[in-house]
Amino acid sequence: MNSITLDDVEDLALGAVVLGTGGGGDPYIAKIMLREAIAKHGPIEIVNAADLDPDGLLLPICMVGAPTVVVEKFPNGDEAGRVLRALESHLGRTGVAVLPLENGGLNSLFPLVVAAELGLPCVDADAIRRAFPQIEMSLFTLAGLSSTPMTMADSMGNYVFFDSVDNATGEKLARSCVAQMGMLAVVSAYAVTAGECARFGANGSLTYCLEIGRRIRAIQEGRPGAYAEFLRFCEAEILFTGKVADIERRTTGGWARGTITLTHLDDPGRAMRVEVQNENLIAFEDGEPKAMVPDLITLLDTETGTAMTTEAVAYGQRLHVIAMPALPQWHTPEGLALAGPRAFGYDLDFVPIGGTR
Amino acid sequence: MNSITLDDVEDLALGAVVLGTGGGGDPYIAKIMLREAIAKHGPIEIVNAADLDPDGLLLPICMVGAPTVVVEKFPNGDEAGRVLRALESHLGRTGVAVLPLENGGLNSLFPLVVAAELGLPCVDADAIRRAFPQIEMSLFTLAGLSSTPMTMADSMGNYVFFDSVDNATGEKLARSCVAQMGMLAVVSAYAVTAGECARFGANGSLTYCLEIGRRIRAIQEGRPGAYAEFLRFCEAEILFTGKVADIERRTTGGWARGTITLTHLDDPGRAMRVEVQNENLIAFEDGEPKAMVPDLITLLDTETGTAMTTEAVAYGQRLHVIAMPALPQWHTPEGLALAGPRAFGYDLDFVPIGGTR
Repeated sequence: MNSITLDDVEDLALGAVVLGTGGGGDPYIAKIMLREAIAKHGPIEIVNAADLDPDGLLLPICMVGAPTVVVEKFPNGDEAGRVLRALESHLGRTGVAVLPLENGGLNSLFPLVVAAELGLPCVDADAIRRAFPQIEMSLFTLAGLSSTPMTMADSMGNYVFFDSVDNATGEKLARSCVAQMGMLAVVSAYAVTAGECARFGANGSLTYCLEIGRRIRAIQEGRPGAYAEFLRFCEAEILFTGKVADIERRTTGGWARGTITLTHLDDPGRAMRVEVQNENLIAFEDGEPKAMVPDLITLLDTETGTAMTTEAVAYGQRLHVIAMPALPQWHTPEGLALAGPRAFGYDLDFVPIGGTR
Repeated sequence: MNSITLDDVEDLALGAVVLGTGGGGDPYIAKIMLREAIAKHGPIEIVNAADLDPDGLLLPICMVGAPTVVVEKFPNGDEAGRVLRALESHLGRTGVAVLPLENGGLNSLFPLVVAAELGLPCVDADAIRRAFPQIEMSLFTLAGLSSTPMTMADSMGNYVFFDSVDNATGEKLARSCVAQMGMLAVVSAYAVTAGECARFGANGSLTYCLEIGRRIRAIQEGRPGAYAEFLRFCEAEILFTGKVADIERRTTGGWARGTITLTHLDDPGRAMRVEVQNENLIAFEDGEPKAMVPDLITLLDTETGTAMTTEAVAYGQRLHVIAMPALPQWHTPEGLALAGPRAFGYDLDFVPIGGTR
């Protein structure tokens, strides 16, 4: 893949919701922005970090906040430019490409809009290869890199710069400001070089997202065997197939939290409960965890294959609960300490999908 | 007054607690720091803003947080230098003098320590002429000046820079970070020129604080008529003389909140209730407000005249509740909107001390 064209936007958005695992925000408005950006600036050049000057500065970008808010409130367009100019000014360097910090939800598409507007290529990578609710949950943290200098701006025109002693504190400071910024802000963190990204990042993840989306579209188009091909490509398994029986949502402390309960289509005595903190964290059946972070848990329409953001889940929907493995780095002791079940307050030992992976 | 010497430190601290109106932090540790700074660097030069180059940049400084924490936790010494260097670097200018942002509690003394360490004079002024719990409650806000660029650092080594669209938002962003910084941080805000300070600041307030302290010391020394002379100098009146019957304290949302109840020494049927948000806000007798912000409410020992921080108030103490007028700027409609009773959530019309002032 050398560029993202208008033809790719829909597929990218379909894949983004799968990697968003319920969170990361509905990419609907980001799709519109991306189409406009491509129409105005032309196809967006995609580059591999390994093909850039290893010392070249990347400009990492993401949106931070509660996905429930993103549906109604969006950047005014200047935030990304402001945080990246501030980062460059602080470092006294100019960036060579935009780097998505997260791949999932609108953060799969938003960095492409930024790249188009800045006239820069976008790196085919991110720092997680899924969505995570906290900024320090990054492969760059696992690599010992600092999340700061971190720059943040909101649509009202407020700007904050952080230099924290560790990435957990950086997250806490940024999160407390997001809560004052109407629960949505644009952030640049982990100002890595292309060489650091090539070594530690989730390289190829933009292509991965697009390929997932193409397979979802095949399901939507009713192509024979498309569901099986999607599952095979994602190394995913269906944990449960049920009807949404209950949804509980609350937006608190800068996060969208909630619980989604499904009853099994074939056996109404079986129920699955999916716990949410922006993203789907753990899927329980009869109190037993069937899949958990950092592995990916996504809800998909049984007919169309459309992946559901937490906000889109509605009573009565018939959904597959699927699970797919996170990158191997997330399965290490360090990866699990940073983004395993205990990092989210669940006193559970991590069990990979299938229990043996 | 041309300089602050070792002989002034105790008096300055005594006055600081009066202007602290219960908040602003106990200046005990700041006294030790100031004595050390004077012993090391010599007397600290005090200047009038009006005597400086009107275009000269002042370096405003204060500590922000919960006074209950300041008793146990203190700056490691580098925070002030860090926030001021960052401010100078951002503005591309060098400051000519240190400016206290608040006069009350430890913030009356701390800027002098900073001035000594930086080898700069300290301006005989502040931005309130008392302590207030929120950063936007400043004469500079009333003058239409921005509180940002604002720089903030804590003793762990975290640093944050704010550029907010208005001073109320600057306070909210800073306050949410203070809560993540262990409830104590050093802040520089309102980077005014000497000319702006001369025009809009509370000029002469360092001298005022010292003069109050000298009169408190006269009470402590048992000089005849000293209490009356103190009240006359401060234009203060005694609202109530009672024994502390109940104290309720909580540290929440970045503030120390509480209620102090006293029963009258001569008539136990009378009670006064003082409501606290870092500072003493309103004094009620039988549900009737007898004094309220922005006027100053301070509790003093009936014998020694020692003013009490909220943390120092203890059951059974015999105290005068005194009230003294704020600067006239605080009695304007704009001043009351910013720091009158409604600004603190009390649905009360402002009534000045005595009801007719």
